[in-house]
Amino acid sequence: MSKTYKITLEYEGAKYSGWQDQNNARTVMGELRQAAQDLFHGPVDIQGAGRTDAGVHALAQVAHFRTSSKQRLHPEQILRGLNDRLPAEIVILQVEEVPSRFHARHDAVSRSYVYQISRRKNAFAKKHVWWIKEPLDIDSMREAAALLAGRHDFVCFRAVDPSKPLESTIVVVDKAEVEEHGDLILFRIEASHFLWRMVRRIVGILVKLGKKEITIEQFRQLLDGKCGQGMKVSEWTAPAAGLFLERVRYKQDVE
Amino acid sequence: MSKTYKITLEYEGAKYSGWQDQNNARTVMGELRQAAQDLFHGPVDIQGAGRTDAGVHALAQVAHFRTSSKQRLHPEQILRGLNDRLPAEIVILQVEEVPSRFHARHDAVSRSYVYQISRRKNAFAKKHVWWIKEPLDIDSMREAAALLAGRHDFVCFRAVDPSKPLESTIVVVDKAEVEEHGDLILFRIEASHFLWRMVRRIVGILVKLGKKEITIEQFRQLLDGKCGQGMKVSEWTAPAAGLFLERVRYKQDVE
Repeated sequence: MSKTYKITLEYEGAKYSGWQDQNNARTVMGELRQAAQDLFHGPVDIQGAGRTDAGVHALAQVAHFRTSSKQRLHPEQILRGLNDRLPAEIVILQVEEVPSRFHARHDAVSRSYVYQISRRKNAFAKKHVWWIKEPLDIDSMREAAALLAGRHDFVCFRAVDPSKPLESTIVVVDKAEVEEHGDLILFRIEASHFLWRMVRRIVGILVKLGKKEITIEQFRQLLDGKCGQGMKVSEWTAPAAGLFLERVRYKQDVE
Repeated sequence: MSKTYKITLEYEGAKYSGWQDQNNARTVMGELRQAAQDLFHGPVDIQGAGRTDAGVHALAQVAHFRTSSKQRLHPEQILRGLNDRLPAEIVILQVEEVPSRFHARHDAVSRSYVYQISRRKNAFAKKHVWWIKEPLDIDSMREAAALLAGRHDFVCFRAVDPSKPLESTIVVVDKAEVEEHGDLILFRIEASHFLWRMVRRIVGILVKLGKKEITIEQFRQLLDGKCGQGMKVSEWTAPAAGLFLERVRYKQDVE
């Protein structure tokens, strides 16, 4: 009989070509599948909740996998068995047996990301922050972040993936905020789903605003779907290093 | 006229053969000298407060340098000029002009180190922690750490550097403690000076105790200078990755 497991994992994305399988590229999902197939001595089908890009990290990505292996393992044994087989930058935090209808992507009701900006060079965190030397006006970044909540057409904030059909650019953002912690500026955003590169483009635009290179009025127009000339949003995309998938929420989760 | 500057810096030691200059090795001091000589267009004499080993980090190493360069730079310009020239893993935190008699090593009244043990695999901190899978008895580690304070003969805890004359093995430890922060166990120790590898050997022995592989009585004997058979202290030396030079204190520092 096949069994389904929900797994929660963290990873440092710097060395990987993102989460999702690709030919001839080292991906987090690929490493995970290899570890699971080695542990279960047979094929394992894996699905993740969110597709993080190359260089993007996760504090708590969620995936499920199904196996019909005869290997009978307790969730705690699976956790240890996978961690023993995975490289240092991928760590399983939790393994739970779930009903077979559970699907990590379809059942997720929201995803949260956090983006780390550092106002100083940091010897320990180069791969985990975007270091910005210029002064940033945090108050106006905070004001703009507050405008993101609600239903908007994020057409100006998305990148187009030529391999996929065009999707709706309407996204309902549950929460978006800017916090300061010493030399770090954290941007947090939660939504049911995100368009490709959307978080990194939002951060890039917030930083432009913080540097006073665009106005809050121009930010409002982008948020109204008026992309405008001279708004080189794709060039402003924040680097992958600062981005972390922070949490995936499910209906079943108790608040 | 020559000028003397006190600089405070942080570094991730993973890539470096330690602080101190060596032939044919990449050292933190070597990188710093190169950056300073490039900035001042001339020779710069550098001395550091503590010699960290290969792979050991610093949150606040202190060094001084003297230059007779005609280049007149404000401390803030020196800070920026050095950081622009240094690799990502070395960051100058502070630059102050000091009287020419200041000596980073001779004037230091104490050094503090912190050692990080992680009780779980951590995707982001492999180079900054010692990951220990086995359960650790923190209470007995705490009890042993408390015994370290005061004047002891640390002959069983030091490594011998064949290139240097044997020094006294008596050290007065100002403070030593074990703290828990979630999955992290931190060991902090402050003393006027340390013997070579002393902190890493203390940590290695504390971990042996935490695993119940030695007794607190055996720990006391080591601290009495009775090294004993079967006590393979050098094999227990904690890895460099978890060790950070945390602070260097000077008479002039205001508490």
